Amino acid sequence: MNVRGQHYRTIWLKKDNAQVVQLIDQRFLPHQFVVEEIRTVEEMARAIREMHVRGAGLIGAAAGYGMYLAATQGMNLDEAAACLQATRPTAVNLACAIERQLASDDKLKTAQAIADEDAEFCRRIGQHGLQLIRDVAARKNGAPVNVLTHCNAGWLAFVDYGSATAPIYAAHDSDVNVHVWVDETRPRGQGSKLTAWELGEHGVPHTIIADNTGGHLMQRGEVDLVLVGTDRTTYTGDVANKIGTYLKALAAKDNDVPFYVALPSTSFDWQLRDGKEIPIEERGAEEVTRADGWSNGERVEVNLAPLTSRAANYGFDVTPRRLITGLITERGICQPNESSILTMFPEHAPL
Amino acid sequence: MNVRGQHYRTIWLKKDNAQVVQLIDQRFLPHQFVVEEIRTVEEMARAIREMHVRGAGLIGAAAGYGMYLAATQGMNLDEAAACLQATRPTAVNLACAIERQLASDDKLKTAQAIADEDAEFCRRIGQHGLQLIRDVAARKNGAPVNVLTHCNAGWLAFVDYGSATAPIYAAHDSDVNVHVWVDETRPRGQGSKLTAWELGEHGVPHTIIADNTGGHLMQRGEVDLVLVGTDRTTYTGDVANKIGTYLKALAAKDNDVPFYVALPSTSFDWQLRDGKEIPIEERGAEEVTRADGWSNGERVEVNLAPLTSRAANYGFDVTPRRLITGLITERGICQPNESSILTMFPEHAPL
Repeated sequence: MNVRGQHYRTIWLKKDNAQVVQLIDQRFLPHQFVVEEIRTVEEMARAIREMHVRGAGLIGAAAGYGMYLAATQGMNLDEAAACLQATRPTAVNLACAIERQLASDDKLKTAQAIADEDAEFCRRIGQHGLQLIRDVAARKNGAPVNVLTHCNAGWLAFVDYGSATAPIYAAHDSDVNVHVWVDETRPRGQGSKLTAWELGEHGVPHTIIADNTGGHLMQRGEVDLVLVGTDRTTYTGDVANKIGTYLKALAAKDNDVPFYVALPSTSFDWQLRDGKEIPIEERGAEEVTRADGWSNGERVEVNLAPLTSRAANYGFDVTPRRLITGLITERGICQPNESSILTMFPEHAPL
Repeated sequence: MNVRGQHYRTIWLKKDNAQVVQLIDQRFLPHQFVVEEIRTVEEMARAIREMHVRGAGLIGAAAGYGMYLAATQGMNLDEAAACLQATRPTAVNLACAIERQLASDDKLKTAQAIADEDAEFCRRIGQHGLQLIRDVAARKNGAPVNVLTHCNAGWLAFVDYGSATAPIYAAHDSDVNVHVWVDETRPRGQGSKLTAWELGEHGVPHTIIADNTGGHLMQRGEVDLVLVGTDRTTYTGDVANKIGTYLKALAAKDNDVPFYVALPSTSFDWQLRDGKEIPIEERGAEEVTRADGWSNGERVEVNLAPLTSRAANYGFDVTPRRLITGLITERGICQPNESSILTMFPEHAPL
């Protein structure tokens, strides 16, 4: 999508120098736009591990390019694979990209294919979701369609377009009047820092809100549609996503607001029947007791809480399928149940 | 309650000098414990306006003491009343305290009575709520009773005990094993800054969580009881409280967790039938786009979001009575409906 009016992906091969991969270093957003140059697989591993890049689709693409860099430098590819795999061991796209590169004869072509496919899946999600937004717009006679989103399931988490944001960008680019309520998404602030930034750079009207606010807005009729992403969705339609998603799904149900989850099929877990079995990552307490932001041009971390207080920090929650209106995939929109999902992806049905 | 092992109220007449009122200046919590001395009604008005003190019960007590200081200095009492009334025009306890002082013959006695009554109402709420916690504890065989609370309905918002916290302190002081999940309560952080501090000083085990987390904890069975306060409750049982309360009430309902609202009867609105009619305060956007905390011993405000992004900041939401298990008042626990509330407070029933 656009940054300062110019089209970017989150990761790309440097123009005129195929030995260098460039990527947007997201640690400095929203206050600085930094493009980092990556020349070795070790540098790529660090960029993934230290979260210069994050998000399921983008991590996969970064691993693909990392394997390509290792190959061009004549490095042992099993070592390169191990180096990348150790960075974020639970990210399923990472393992897929590495496997695919190990089996590939043309590492550059495969790296580009991984990135292109990710972008293409997201573009298609955008086209399928666009129709939902158009349908609301038709009822609203030109008044803005208000979409609420949580966390960053934007193009910064993929190679381009994003998952939850893809229908929003498609609508905006088709001159549909769309406005986004952006949950700030404590404790890490992916909404305030990433989603607000990417929507702003692409020119999409948006308003940041505290995570506490979505229910009140829905009660007042100010949300037409909720669109979120997912870290993992069972083949029965239970959705693990950033902590707090479940609360918004409850409010959507209580106020008859449609609640959609956008995902490339790579985010389905074809083994898992029950969302309760999805392991929930616990992160450091200091993300809750502290906040980092910018003051006088510098990044500063501040204490919010008593130094003696404990804090707990669960990364995700699971929204049960009964609260979900539909799943927007690259093949179309399906219902959050086993039958509808496996009808759309029959290659994953049990034999 | 206790601070560093010593009993405090939030406001009191200085020992050995009845010309001075002392109060805890809450702006510096949780990182500094500052006691401010107030000698004039103008100083008291500033303390209320600039939120050195806040919370319904405490604002009323502060106004009572402010009128007393004005009287001892021979000031025109109508002017003093106007000066105090202008500070937080929507706070109902403020107006009540001023009216009462204008009609009083003994300003000191009345100031003390306003404070004492507030503390006594909260103490009784604690005794009625204690039984709820004891009932859970009896089922749990010594395992901690996990109470979730939102915002600060603690003793810092009243003269002593608090509303939502009163049953918690009563349980803790009776050696019931109780642990509190403290919602941080963005954007202003009353949970992280005030509730965590006061629980910690009194020795109550607690864990701070992002506001996104309560639903997940309830899904996992880690919340036995939700206890919150209220800024205004209709005589039919709809509850206005800090933004985000509604989302927790939905999650409690979805997981069969009892959801109680604790309030002195001064927080009922005896005129309002429908919670949808309660006006919701909109506050400055910068509370959402920024966070203030402490760094190297100094208070620092940091930017969290793009400088060009809009934000919206609604202070409260309304939890409909159908989501509420009961209301804990100074007279006992009633159901959230007109009949039960007016049976407990018959003097407010229509003639």
